[in-house]
Amino acid sequence: MFQSYEAPQSAGESGQRLRQLRQRLIKRGLDAVLVPRADEHQGEYVAPASQRLAWLTGFTGSAGLAVVTRSAAALFVDGRYVVQAPLQVDTSLFGIVQVPPAKPSQWLLDELKAGATVGYDPWLHTEAGIDELAKALNPKGIKLTALAHNPIDTIWGRQRPAPPKGPVVPHALKYAGTAAADKLAELKTRLRREDADAVVLTQPDSIAWLLNVRGSDVAHNPVPLAFAIITVAGKPELFIDKDKIGREAREHLAALVRILPPAALRERLAALKAQGKRVRLDPNTAANWFFRTLRGGRIVRAVDPCLLPKARKNATEIAGARAAHKRDGAVLARFLAWLERESGREAADEIGVAQQLERLRGETQALKDISFDTISGAGPNGAIVHYRVTTASNRKLLPGELYLVDSGGQYLDGTTDITRTVAIGSPTPEMQERFTRVLKGHIAVATARFPTGTRGIDLDPFARRALWEAGLDFDHGTGHGVGSYLSVHEGPQNISRRGMTALEPGMIISNEPGYYKQGAYGIRLENLVLVEEATLIAGAERNTMGFETLTLVPFDRRLVVAALLTEAELAWLNAYHARVWREIGPELGAADRDWLEAATRPMAA
Amino acid sequence: MFQSYEAPQSAGESGQRLRQLRQRLIKRGLDAVLVPRADEHQGEYVAPASQRLAWLTGFTGSAGLAVVTRSAAALFVDGRYVVQAPLQVDTSLFGIVQVPPAKPSQWLLDELKAGATVGYDPWLHTEAGIDELAKALNPKGIKLTALAHNPIDTIWGRQRPAPPKGPVVPHALKYAGTAAADKLAELKTRLRREDADAVVLTQPDSIAWLLNVRGSDVAHNPVPLAFAIITVAGKPELFIDKDKIGREAREHLAALVRILPPAALRERLAALKAQGKRVRLDPNTAANWFFRTLRGGRIVRAVDPCLLPKARKNATEIAGARAAHKRDGAVLARFLAWLERESGREAADEIGVAQQLERLRGETQALKDISFDTISGAGPNGAIVHYRVTTASNRKLLPGELYLVDSGGQYLDGTTDITRTVAIGSPTPEMQERFTRVLKGHIAVATARFPTGTRGIDLDPFARRALWEAGLDFDHGTGHGVGSYLSVHEGPQNISRRGMTALEPGMIISNEPGYYKQGAYGIRLENLVLVEEATLIAGAERNTMGFETLTLVPFDRRLVVAALLTEAELAWLNAYHARVWREIGPELGAADRDWLEAATRPMAA
Repeated sequence: MFQSYEAPQSAGESGQRLRQLRQRLIKRGLDAVLVPRADEHQGEYVAPASQRLAWLTGFTGSAGLAVVTRSAAALFVDGRYVVQAPLQVDTSLFGIVQVPPAKPSQWLLDELKAGATVGYDPWLHTEAGIDELAKALNPKGIKLTALAHNPIDTIWGRQRPAPPKGPVVPHALKYAGTAAADKLAELKTRLRREDADAVVLTQPDSIAWLLNVRGSDVAHNPVPLAFAIITVAGKPELFIDKDKIGREAREHLAALVRILPPAALRERLAALKAQGKRVRLDPNTAANWFFRTLRGGRIVRAVDPCLLPKARKNATEIAGARAAHKRDGAVLARFLAWLERESGREAADEIGVAQQLERLRGETQALKDISFDTISGAGPNGAIVHYRVTTASNRKLLPGELYLVDSGGQYLDGTTDITRTVAIGSPTPEMQERFTRVLKGHIAVATARFPTGTRGIDLDPFARRALWEAGLDFDHGTGHGVGSYLSVHEGPQNISRRGMTALEPGMIISNEPGYYKQGAYGIRLENLVLVEEATLIAGAERNTMGFETLTLVPFDRRLVVAALLTEAELAWLNAYHARVWREIGPELGAADRDWLEAATRPMAA
Repeated sequence: MFQSYEAPQSAGESGQRLRQLRQRLIKRGLDAVLVPRADEHQGEYVAPASQRLAWLTGFTGSAGLAVVTRSAAALFVDGRYVVQAPLQVDTSLFGIVQVPPAKPSQWLLDELKAGATVGYDPWLHTEAGIDELAKALNPKGIKLTALAHNPIDTIWGRQRPAPPKGPVVPHALKYAGTAAADKLAELKTRLRREDADAVVLTQPDSIAWLLNVRGSDVAHNPVPLAFAIITVAGKPELFIDKDKIGREAREHLAALVRILPPAALRERLAALKAQGKRVRLDPNTAANWFFRTLRGGRIVRAVDPCLLPKARKNATEIAGARAAHKRDGAVLARFLAWLERESGREAADEIGVAQQLERLRGETQALKDISFDTISGAGPNGAIVHYRVTTASNRKLLPGELYLVDSGGQYLDGTTDITRTVAIGSPTPEMQERFTRVLKGHIAVATARFPTGTRGIDLDPFARRALWEAGLDFDHGTGHGVGSYLSVHEGPQNISRRGMTALEPGMIISNEPGYYKQGAYGIRLENLVLVEEATLIAGAERNTMGFETLTLVPFDRRLVVAALLTEAELAWLNAYHARVWREIGPELGAADRDWLEAATRPMAA
């Protein structure tokens, strides 16, 4: 099993650890120190050795920052975690502060005297983050100072888990579609064109994509923790713990890169600087440490050049995505059929249902991991957008309630991510009406056509209009980019209020509008979609794109109010269900096929 | 008549003027000089005395920049003016360059040697503009130098028109709704709250709004050219040519401000600087001169604080807008009825039709000015988005073609702006289909409901979706803010790809999607809409807003394909027409009323 359901532990040792941290503050002459939930790569998943924030505070959310002064301490979390944080953290030690509206910089300005000094680990903050913080603190003369050693690590000592040594494996060309040598050649051409002599890659999924390798250092995200320097001339250098490189990986990598230990980074950067090379770095993702190390040299500040080519899936990756979604769709059909039988008999619970889903994915023999911890929320738990079920929160699926399940699989040929909301027993008319509004938003995105240059921000309102008309909305983006057997959250493309990246053919994005009634139920309907050129539009004057929906799983017909759908919306739903039946039906055994046939039957207006 | 239809003059004297300018360049040791289409207030309309770009190049468009070096010269214009500019400008003297994609900074980098010096008039560029340009030129060591005297003025000499002395008049409380003293008090409170001791206002419409005055220094925009300094304590200062202030204005202003000549600005700013006052300035609208003058002092860079309160119309202004639109709607009904009769007899032409429209507006006895030069485009001229008809381009309205008219009036109680597209004779099915798609976009905006925080960028896609579905689009924003007997283009609110300002109740915006078939016809359908709280949504959880359509003029039913409209869209159109009939019908004489009755008859699906 890839998921655990342990309840969060209360942070019994926080008090003692905080005292020790403060002793170190005083010893080093600092007035405050920052403890972010981050590792050296600024990724979403963090290995146990880097979970310093959880070690100090008990808080295990996927984003957060503790700020500790000699006399005060605060834990800054976003809206997703305002419920969870106080359950995990000793609030007599740490004030819980929501960002936004609060800002750590303002808190520091309020707490500290003019001229105070704040320590931070330059490996754990991006250049842009430190830059912004320094600017905010400057008017009061508060200084940021980079620490050579992380004080948490000193205190943690031998109890600190070892860094991960997950083996690196080649990612076969039949999945990757483009040889690593070709990707490297294209990257070098681009660097030349964009006036850089070298680029430092700090994001593991960029490196995994570029070199056609995968790893297993963190949960659910098959990447190796590593850095790379690609120079326009000469062999690229991969900085990685050699213990992760077995024979197969070594053979694959030998022709592509020199393998060096991470400790060699400093020296190699110093050499580039001494040679006057123009070194490209992404201030939004690369650690402040790199900028400090190259200070005085020629730094080209620009976005990670792997982001866009990685986001534009090639034909092989697209074929892989379709195959993965067909496989995953059959799993979901079996799962939903099972759930309907099961919930008819005796109430299942959130953990049991999530385990069954993971079991069925495992039976495909193709599952490498789940793509994130399954969100399995019954009744009011469904209204918690990033709900993670534990033994403490586990809830039965009761008649008259909705059940929301958001999950995905990591397969060699693709990463999936799907959310369905189903009725347990009989839903209320309000549930049906709101489900149908969410579905209208989902269909409005799925059917959108749009010209070259259209950004995610331009499509986001389509997902919301039917909710807005009823005075409703949802407080998350409509969609995120998805990798190809890589991170389930992949930039730069997304569909949201902030989505300024133009969509391009080959990008895979989620389409997941929702509606959440606090304390009652949650609805989210998520398919992955592929951006494609739209063909066959008579009289078209603009180069136009549209989406192919990749996910093949029925929506719960019991929750659809056909009368609220327009003719075109109903036609889309029936055509989608007919396609699900056509493509997934043949993959199922008799009982599940019968269920699918009923679940995909056309609805009348 | 407020509009002239003169054809652009070819710039016969450009060669000589350019030679003289180059002599001055050499004399002053400059390598280049900038000649923008701008005055000291960065407004859309510029008085003849400030039309230096037109004097030098012959180009009369509303935006442009000439850059002159010792050996080369270029005129930078945006896409609206790529056709007009080469007709007006001697292209053997000035290369015409389209921005974007080109940038003046790149052109200067290409043309000039490292270390070169570029002169500019600090009164004619915003701080943000100079800042951006300086940054772009910096890598090559090219320096910007502010000129104490504009070299064009020296050459222009006695031929240069005198600066305008349009009389200032009080804007009555029955139109303004809020007393100037109250607006000033609120502004002072806001300055205090936002940590400034003073603000410098440089935009004439901000000053006109704040002091409840209007002026007549530039065409179509009833503002006085003036500056103001508002301090949190003490009497505000208005910097304006005293000749503009008659008895009535003096009495109105006496209690509100001290009146000073514009030449006193420098001294007053120096005093604020010497006193260590925090002076607020808007880098996006205030001239670089202000920042230079206050350099070394405490400048608070922030948006013009009048923008948002001016944009949020009060109840009096809203009532005024409704009255102005009713008056203007009756004018348009009479005009469209006349046009149908006229075009049945003998072909009218673009100028004659525009003159008739101005004449009818004038007959209301309430028209103070037109709100911009009427766009009167028949057939292919309708496809030119910012078409300005002249005796040279004047075209007959021919059967089988479309006619597009975009116009507005300045009334004491409000500013109007409306576009209608009508069929002359029988339209083609393609024209009807595309008109209907534009109408669908118009209706999608008019009927939108949206929660607090929604920005114009979030509504813009609704205007385009029906066009996108057919592979079509239009290359301008969907809507701009509109003032209250002020500028017809008013920020900060708009509906466009760049509209990041949240919409708020009381804002007036245009809703004007279009479609343009180059060389054939243009379609634009424009109403003004008012942002309002949406009431009576059962079960609403969010504070929701919507639009009230202010403009009351029928859409040409002959161009509507009812079968392409959804039930809801057709219901909106019929309800809108019923409302137009109800509100405008009683204002008309018998013949025009008969026309309106037919024009507003309900359409069947």
